[in-house]
Amino acid sequence: MKAWVLNQAGGPDNFELQDIAKPKAELGEALVQVKAIGINRHDVMSRNGLKADATTEERVIGIEIAGEVVDINPEDHESSHVAIGDHVAGIITHGAYAEYARLPLSRAMVFPKDTPFTTAAAIPEAFMTAYQTIYWIGDLQEGERILVHAAGSGVGTAAIQLANHLSKAEIFATAGRQDKLDLAQKLGAQTTINYKAENFADVISEATDKKGVDVILDFIGASYAAKNLSTIGVDGRWVLIGVLGGTEVSDFDMGQLLFKRVKLQGTLLSNRADDYKASLVADVNRDVVPLIADGTIHPVIDSVINFDHLPEAHRYMEANKNLGKIIVSLEE
Amino acid sequence: MKAWVLNQAGGPDNFELQDIAKPKAELGEALVQVKAIGINRHDVMSRNGLKADATTEERVIGIEIAGEVVDINPEDHESSHVAIGDHVAGIITHGAYAEYARLPLSRAMVFPKDTPFTTAAAIPEAFMTAYQTIYWIGDLQEGERILVHAAGSGVGTAAIQLANHLSKAEIFATAGRQDKLDLAQKLGAQTTINYKAENFADVISEATDKKGVDVILDFIGASYAAKNLSTIGVDGRWVLIGVLGGTEVSDFDMGQLLFKRVKLQGTLLSNRADDYKASLVADVNRDVVPLIADGTIHPVIDSVINFDHLPEAHRYMEANKNLGKIIVSLEE
Repeated sequence: MKAWVLNQAGGPDNFELQDIAKPKAELGEALVQVKAIGINRHDVMSRNGLKADATTEERVIGIEIAGEVVDINPEDHESSHVAIGDHVAGIITHGAYAEYARLPLSRAMVFPKDTPFTTAAAIPEAFMTAYQTIYWIGDLQEGERILVHAAGSGVGTAAIQLANHLSKAEIFATAGRQDKLDLAQKLGAQTTINYKAENFADVISEATDKKGVDVILDFIGASYAAKNLSTIGVDGRWVLIGVLGGTEVSDFDMGQLLFKRVKLQGTLLSNRADDYKASLVADVNRDVVPLIADGTIHPVIDSVINFDHLPEAHRYMEANKNLGKIIVSLEE
Repeated sequence: MKAWVLNQAGGPDNFELQDIAKPKAELGEALVQVKAIGINRHDVMSRNGLKADATTEERVIGIEIAGEVVDINPEDHESSHVAIGDHVAGIITHGAYAEYARLPLSRAMVFPKDTPFTTAAAIPEAFMTAYQTIYWIGDLQEGERILVHAAGSGVGTAAIQLANHLSKAEIFATAGRQDKLDLAQKLGAQTTINYKAENFADVISEATDKKGVDVILDFIGASYAAKNLSTIGVDGRWVLIGVLGGTEVSDFDMGQLLFKRVKLQGTLLSNRADDYKASLVADVNRDVVPLIADGTIHPVIDSVINFDHLPEAHRYMEANKNLGKIIVSLEE
């Protein structure tokens, strides 16, 4: 099969399209004919961090695929929710940048056959992260208020749609560009705030009669910490999933954290245990996939690049201009 | 009945022993003949913060009582777990410094008749707070590691005993006096650390092979924040219940919070809703009261002062010399 193999750590020029052995489904896995690949920031880190002694298998990076199941190797001959011929998407450890990839059955989301593979490939990482942070950690309740930073990001746009359709939440969204704010509003945010022009803490304080928000989805960290703390309400849940704004806070007020009974929790998805991810996939299959299948919610896709030009997808992501997901397609 | 009535906000000299009307049990309450009173820091704040327009009822402060039930006014004629003649203890809104007090039935802990009232009066605040923070928020699991700061305090000594007897936890305890550390060890702490002589973060890092602790019970806040963050392990729960060491942190590292997936939660018990407190009392009745009744665990009592000398209890608490609870007794 054809696969993009990394010769060594470094820039996108180190990718080489090679013919390598097709993988086999191991116990508890499906073999998927890959039709579309989601490109993630994680992939750029994998590329730059490739170890010199990596195997050929490990030199095929990428973690997010959609495609058609061509083989299944179920554990203990138990039935699975996945069958040969199904259209699936999911997160894998590595090996996405190829014509075939192995997908653990517990990670498989099954989509109707009329859902485009380019849509399905844009779902797993963004919607699993958004679901985990909003519901498992943020415990967002019907009609509560949520503040979503980085509203134009993959997770941000997923979070706004979930909070809107699953929880009828009142949504505040911040971004630094008007097209991102317009998109956030279209997806369900009632109040959008350009952080370059306005102080989000002041805007939210006034809009909520000083009550603040119940949940904050925070990709930023240090540079927003003081404002987030003043913006969060009593019994609020502040979910930290990124530190784009740095890590060192020089004015962190634990008094507010105590008296407002705030929960501040850091979380990442990629380094979680397998059973954690399997439970999360099960919840997303139940609550989110049907809404994607019927078109109620949808991933935001910036561009689709052909598999033959995959290294271009990395150059484009590093230029930081995309609004929504970059997808690589293997279909004609 | 006799009651200590506060003439005005200020020092302990403002208490005056008066004869006032005996209260009546309102719907959902028991009337308790008070036999012992737990003195709390909260009482000192109430005394200093008394409003000029406070009613006579509000001028009788104090929140923690033990005594005998002399009347019951159950809601909707439903049966209650409390009967006339029962020995009970619990937290009330105010009115503890008197011969009779009203206690909501949902707040009542029922003790065997051979448990001294002075013991029962030392239970509610310390053990409810310890239980709430360790289990409801800290989610301590069997055999995990917990760090308890202020190990000589009422909540600290309760927490060490609960973590030991309910969870077989590995317990680290800090304090600044040898008698407090000796007590912590006697109550079940395996490792005691004098924070004046040693860096607790270094001691724990070495003792745990750099894995750190699963739960931190933090009364201190700012001055320990950086050390707590380096001491807590992956998926750790850091429960903030006091800011004795200040509120402003100048070097808070959100990167560690993110990558270790730490939950930092502030909490207080006194300002929680009634149903929260009722659920907590139910859990403490089920899990803790039997262990106190059979002598497995016990509150730490520093001294018992006669009701006639109640203002002395306030002077003693403000001198900050007590190791364990100060109890006021109405028995001969």
